[in-house]
This record gives sequence, C-alpha cells and structure tokens, in this order.
Amino acid sequence: MPEQNLSDSQNPNAGLLLIGDELLSGRTQDVNFPSIAKFLAARGIDLCEVRVVSDVESDIIAAVNALRERYTYVFTTGGIGPTHDDITADAIAKAFGVEIEQHPQAVEMLHKLFKANGVEPNDARMRMARVPQGGDLINSDKIKVPGFHIGNVFVMAGVPKIMNLMLEAVSDMIEGGPVVMSKSVRIERGEGDLAVPLADIQNRFPDISIGSYPFHEKGCYGANIVLRGRNENDLESAFKEVETLV
Amino acid sequence: MPEQNLSDSQNPNAGLLLIGDELLSGRTQDVNFPSIAKFLAARGIDLCEVRVVSDVESDIIAAVNALRERYTYVFTTGGIGPTHDDITADAIAKAFGVEIEQHPQAVEMLHKLFKANGVEPNDARMRMARVPQGGDLINSDKIKVPGFHIGNVFVMAGVPKIMNLMLEAVSDMIEGGPVVMSKSVRIERGEGDLAVPLADIQNRFPDISIGSYPFHEKGCYGANIVLRGRNENDLESAFKEVETLV
Repeated sequence: MPEQNLSDSQNPNAGLLLIGDELLSGRTQDVNFPSIAKFLAARGIDLCEVRVVSDVESDIIAAVNALRERYTYVFTTGGIGPTHDDITADAIAKAFGVEIEQHPQAVEMLHKLFKANGVEPNDARMRMARVPQGGDLINSDKIKVPGFHIGNVFVMAGVPKIMNLMLEAVSDMIEGGPVVMSKSVRIERGEGDLAVPLADIQNRFPDISIGSYPFHEKGCYGANIVLRGRNENDLESAFKEVETLV
Repeated sequence: MPEQNLSDSQNPNAGLLLIGDELLSGRTQDVNFPSIAKFLAARGIDLCEVRVVSDVESDIIAAVNALRERYTYVFTTGGIGPTHDDITADAIAKAFGVEIEQHPQAVEMLHKLFKANGVEPNDARMRMARVPQGGDLINSDKIKVPGFHIGNVFVMAGVPKIMNLMLEAVSDMIEGGPVVMSKSVRIERGEGDLAVPLADIQNRFPDISIGSYPFHEKGCYGANIVLRGRNENDLESAFKEVETLV
C-alpha cells in the first residue's frame, strides 16, 4: 500500500514543541496546538510532528534539536516567563550551543511595560529580556513581552492570548507554500464496505491524501472521508470517485 | 538552578503517541491526550512525553521505538480501523521486528460484532483482527473492536469513546505507583515579584515540583502556584512557605 505523505513535496513544513509540566500532568489542557495547526495549514506549511515535554532542560534540548534538523520551521510554546520553572530560553541557547544575553530591544520593551504597570524592573523580570546569541525578537506593536527566534526556531509564550499575538507577528517572518485544499463527504456506510474502493482510489491518486474518519451516532454510522492535496484537478477527480460511494 | 523532574524517581512513567493526519492538519482537535494524562496521573504514572505523528509508517515506527525504549509504558491512539489509512498495527509490528497475523480471539470478537450488526466479515473488516506476533488483546466485555498490547506498548483506537473503554480495560494490565499529590494557591501578585522567593523555596525542596502559571484577568493579574510531589510532609512544608507569599 503506498504511503501517503503530502510533505514529501518541496513545501515548507514544521514541527511544534509544547513545553510544560502542567500539560503532561493533565492539569491544563493545551489549546495552542490546534491554533498553530490551523495557522500553518492556512499558510501551506505542513505540520508534521508535535512533541510535548516537561520543564526539564535536557528533554527540551533534545526535542528542539531533533525537530530543527528535520523541519523547515520549529515553533515552541511555554517557559519564557520570569520564574524558576521558565527554562526555555536557556535550553534553546544550549541546543544551539550559544551563550544567552540580554537583548537591547527586549530590555527596552520590558522597561516600557514595567513603567506602564508601575512595577519594578527587578532581576527576575529582566530575565525575560534574555535571548540566545544570534537570536532576535518576534516584533509586533501588540506584543508587550519578548518572544524570539533563532535559526529556524520560533520561541513563543504558553499563555494562549499572548501566543496568538506572537503567532500573528511570526506570519511576516516565515515563507508559506501552496495551501493544501480539502474536500470531504459524509458517507453513511460502514468503513468495512468502503475500505476496498477507497484504497483503490488512493492508489490511483498518490498525490491526494484520503482519510477515513468513522462516526457512530444514534441509529446511524459511517465515515467522513476527507481528501487533501495541492493538485486541484486530481482532488476534483478523486473526489468525484469517492462521491460515487455515497 | 536545580532541574525538577519528578520522574527521576523509580515510579513508572509513560510516553504517549497520537497518530493521525487529521490532528496535524488542524481538522480534528485531539481530546485523548488530556484523558490519558488524567488517567495516568490518577495511577501514579508520570506521563513524560507526548508525540503526534501523521499516518506515515516510518514516522510511527521511529516514534514508537524512541518512546518504548525510554518509558515504562507507551500508549498509542489512532489508525487501527479497516481502511487504507489505518497502518498502526503494521507499523507496530515493524517497530518490534515481528510478523503480523490474525489473532484468534480478535477474529472471534469481530465475527460476533459483524453478525450482530448484520454486516459481512470481508477482508477489509477482518484486517482489524491482525495483531503483531507476541501481542495480545486489550480485553474487556465492553469493547467490541480489538485494541492490543505488545511488550510495553498499548495500541488503542482514536475514536475517544472507544479509546476511553480501552483505557479502562488497560487499567488492570499496568502497575501504578504512589500518586503525585498537589496543592495550589492563587496569588494576585506579578510573577516578577514571586520569582525570587519561589526559586528559593524550590531550591530547598528538591523533591517538590513548583510551577507558576500566570493569569491576566480584567483589572487583576497574578499566578497560580502549583506544588506537586510524592512526599506529603515536604509538600505541606513547601506549601506553607508559598502561602506566606499571598
């Protein structure tokens, strides 16, 4: 059976690293993954892999290095605040084998924020200005705290509201590709009846990815068949064939 | 700064692998990760890492092998249905370097199901009876389709309703450990003011993991401080110290 992988193409792809004990302990449910998945899909960037690791430096380093070697872009969320459990910036510096230092623009950004909030720019708060050497800020007027990028890695906050602002700002810094188009149809027949004809269609349209997602509702079962691809003609042709199975 | 990792202890730990293009494309939002995280936490098993990969055999094999070498248990979800995009069982067989064959008990289970549903046990449907050599079923009266386990790897459905039944059945097949206890307190002060005293408490209670999770609400900001650990005395002592910061 041929292996379907839209990412075999030359389109940009991405890995995502979610960092935080609170996700793994089940205390907090991540919502950044789906936001980032949709953001990338809309820009024609294939999200190929996601990893979630805890606030352990060696685990963050290993994951960042595995992902940045493999994918066009890597996005991380979490661990860039001022407290002892915020170790992402240091881990990224170690992953790249560089020193970490205060970034002048981040220092300025934070001084402005702390002045506005009437809080003291103490050492802990100013830790947030630290960026691995060679890195630069994720810039936007809307962002008041520093996220940064180094090489192909974009380091963002874990708080969804801030993460989304950073993601928006990242939009101008990355190159997208042709967007994957998709068509889907709901078929109220068991997957077991659809499997052979679907596999046949899949074989004949290797650049279209055909997924079958079963549903079971009251008194009714079947599958949603989702076709995805960048070749519009093939997508239409394959879809027409799938529609005959309804 | 000392690295916190509750999993340095001898307690059982786990890795989780979510399999499916639909998760990475942003089309479907995974809900199995939080369910499994809570299930493991309740049994004193530390979930240390999660990976999400697409329906690509080599990616599944690499992830399963990385996780099963590292953790006490590995759980997978997705890709065990009858259609061409359901390749998890084959990938697991290859990861273990064994053949895959119809499992007599799975055959029986499926024949019963198909008879009840009045559908034909065709080849596609009977693919679901295939289990890697040396593997065995996840058994439960409530489950009508076969999930399986081989070595330390538990292979479950992606459909949340079925996954939850399988997870329940797995409960008797795994050994838990002392449950991690947690205490938390909401502090309406900026993380920048809490960072130094929190780091100090963390340093003095190395077997307690202290996390700081900022919140920003209308006219109010601060952090939820979460303490987690298996030593009740240390947890209480550290918590009392954190409470003085309120």
